[in-house]
Amino acid sequence: MSIRIGIFGYGNLAKGVELAVRNHKDMELKAVFTRRDPSGVKIKTEGVPVYHADDAVKLKDEIDVMILCGGSATDLPTQTPQMAEMFNVIDSFDTHAKIPEHFDNVDKAAKKSGKTAIISVGWDPGMFSLNRMYAGAILPDGEDYTFWGKGVSQGHSDAIRRIEGVVDAKQYTIPVDAALDAVRSGSAPELTTRDKHTRECFVVAEEGADLERIESEIVNMPNYFADYNTTVHFISQEELNANHSGIPHGGFVIRSGKTGLNGEHKHIIEYSLKLDSNPEFTASVLVAYARAAYRLNQEGSAGCKTVFDIAPAYLSPQSGEELRKHLL
Amino acid sequence: MSIRIGIFGYGNLAKGVELAVRNHKDMELKAVFTRRDPSGVKIKTEGVPVYHADDAVKLKDEIDVMILCGGSATDLPTQTPQMAEMFNVIDSFDTHAKIPEHFDNVDKAAKKSGKTAIISVGWDPGMFSLNRMYAGAILPDGEDYTFWGKGVSQGHSDAIRRIEGVVDAKQYTIPVDAALDAVRSGSAPELTTRDKHTRECFVVAEEGADLERIESEIVNMPNYFADYNTTVHFISQEELNANHSGIPHGGFVIRSGKTGLNGEHKHIIEYSLKLDSNPEFTASVLVAYARAAYRLNQEGSAGCKTVFDIAPAYLSPQSGEELRKHLL
Repeated sequence: MSIRIGIFGYGNLAKGVELAVRNHKDMELKAVFTRRDPSGVKIKTEGVPVYHADDAVKLKDEIDVMILCGGSATDLPTQTPQMAEMFNVIDSFDTHAKIPEHFDNVDKAAKKSGKTAIISVGWDPGMFSLNRMYAGAILPDGEDYTFWGKGVSQGHSDAIRRIEGVVDAKQYTIPVDAALDAVRSGSAPELTTRDKHTRECFVVAEEGADLERIESEIVNMPNYFADYNTTVHFISQEELNANHSGIPHGGFVIRSGKTGLNGEHKHIIEYSLKLDSNPEFTASVLVAYARAAYRLNQEGSAGCKTVFDIAPAYLSPQSGEELRKHLL
Repeated sequence: MSIRIGIFGYGNLAKGVELAVRNHKDMELKAVFTRRDPSGVKIKTEGVPVYHADDAVKLKDEIDVMILCGGSATDLPTQTPQMAEMFNVIDSFDTHAKIPEHFDNVDKAAKKSGKTAIISVGWDPGMFSLNRMYAGAILPDGEDYTFWGKGVSQGHSDAIRRIEGVVDAKQYTIPVDAALDAVRSGSAPELTTRDKHTRECFVVAEEGADLERIESEIVNMPNYFADYNTTVHFISQEELNANHSGIPHGGFVIRSGKTGLNGEHKHIIEYSLKLDSNPEFTASVLVAYARAAYRLNQEGSAGCKTVFDIAPAYLSPQSGEELRKHLL
């Protein structure tokens, strides 16, 4: 029997989940839920119904895992606990500072319903967190470094778009090669924000807009750009559409650690991602953890978990025996 | 209370375990066991006793986890099941083809005694296996690539030393940059053994030995060298000691996968290690998993496990709350 997946919300991440489910023979997409008018939502999978979000309760017994695809700012803090009252759930909650509070809320709901919830799944938080944890446990005497990019930052692109005279914009976060090389050398450098990343902006301005003023507002914007070396390119909307419509991302998690009688041996553990599509990759991680949530719940587990709490084998369709034979 | 660690065997790996334990505040080294005369074994930690292997049973209640540091060929197949009758155990069994059989033997012993055993811990098998598994579960539509090096292969160095006229030798396994670049490009290339690695040998020959014959025996040696491009350098024992006495190693596990409606988006997941000391790093992994074995057994878990079966949080000294707050 297949694991029956529900998708809650239907934006970029949800579209990625819809496609990712097709890559898993032991799963099927059962339904999509939206807060819009369902008749206006056309999905890519024939034969799968789209329901209004309020009707989710009616499919309580037909969905094994609900994958929540809303945003961390306003959607997930209420949706994940609500859905955990009825379903095993997965979300990609990524507001790092609010994870403990979100965890507690979801844990309460899931324990009450006897369901399994896994929150903050994706690559950061998610696979990057896992790699920081494994590497730190193995090499306690060491330093962690996380670099992001090269990739599109949605938040920074939005911040540019809010500037007067800006029609459209895309911002790339780029790790500095010299900083990466210094970390990989094992020298355990201290790096400032400016040392680690540069920001490159492609901006479409209104005709006749004051480009100098726009550029100055961007590079001096506190929190977003002021602490970085930032480059601004003004281009046409056509060029932006043609060359900057993708949503690539990625990054590096590096642990530089030491062992030996006097720390004389250096070790570098590096995990990196180079992603053509940030939402499709994030979705792929969510779907793998949906398998884990289903299995854990079958075993009687209830409550909220994170990637730290899930034994890796739960993610794989292979049996323990197969994994030991082929992958160990 | 500290987790009390025992070390069984006292070679390079065991010496690494002895040093690694010092990096963990919640652990203490309790005893070392050897099959040699204990009075002749001098360890690096003052105040820790060295016992004969046969006396392990007497310390049954004083050791929380026994870390087995013998070899996979003849030691571990008998030692790990034996020790699992008395202790929670960790080993680094790395004969891939015999893992299922070893697992079954250890599982039987550990289930009978109610102890927790974790086998095949280290980096390959171990962290490399984990990364192959995670990446494959996330990107089912893709290819795995494993590269080893640059590093010393003990087995290949030994094979050279057995050739007539050879006094000493060190062999380095080196991944081919062009192959790594091709994999990282996302082109999912098919690579032969020769494409992926080269082998570089530093050989000390007897005075007057036929160097041409030795070189020919090396590069044409079936299994070990015949399928690779191999370079042989004849050097003096002094030079070998001065420049090639380290035991560095490392490697790369790369998953090249696709997502999208027609696989139009490529993703690269890469995990790599660059290690100054292969035994000290392997030992660091064993010690982190010793914490997991101890905790799992405290929870009542019994039987044999591998890295696939251990939730990451068990490796860390931090609580679930701390991990969620600081590392997620």
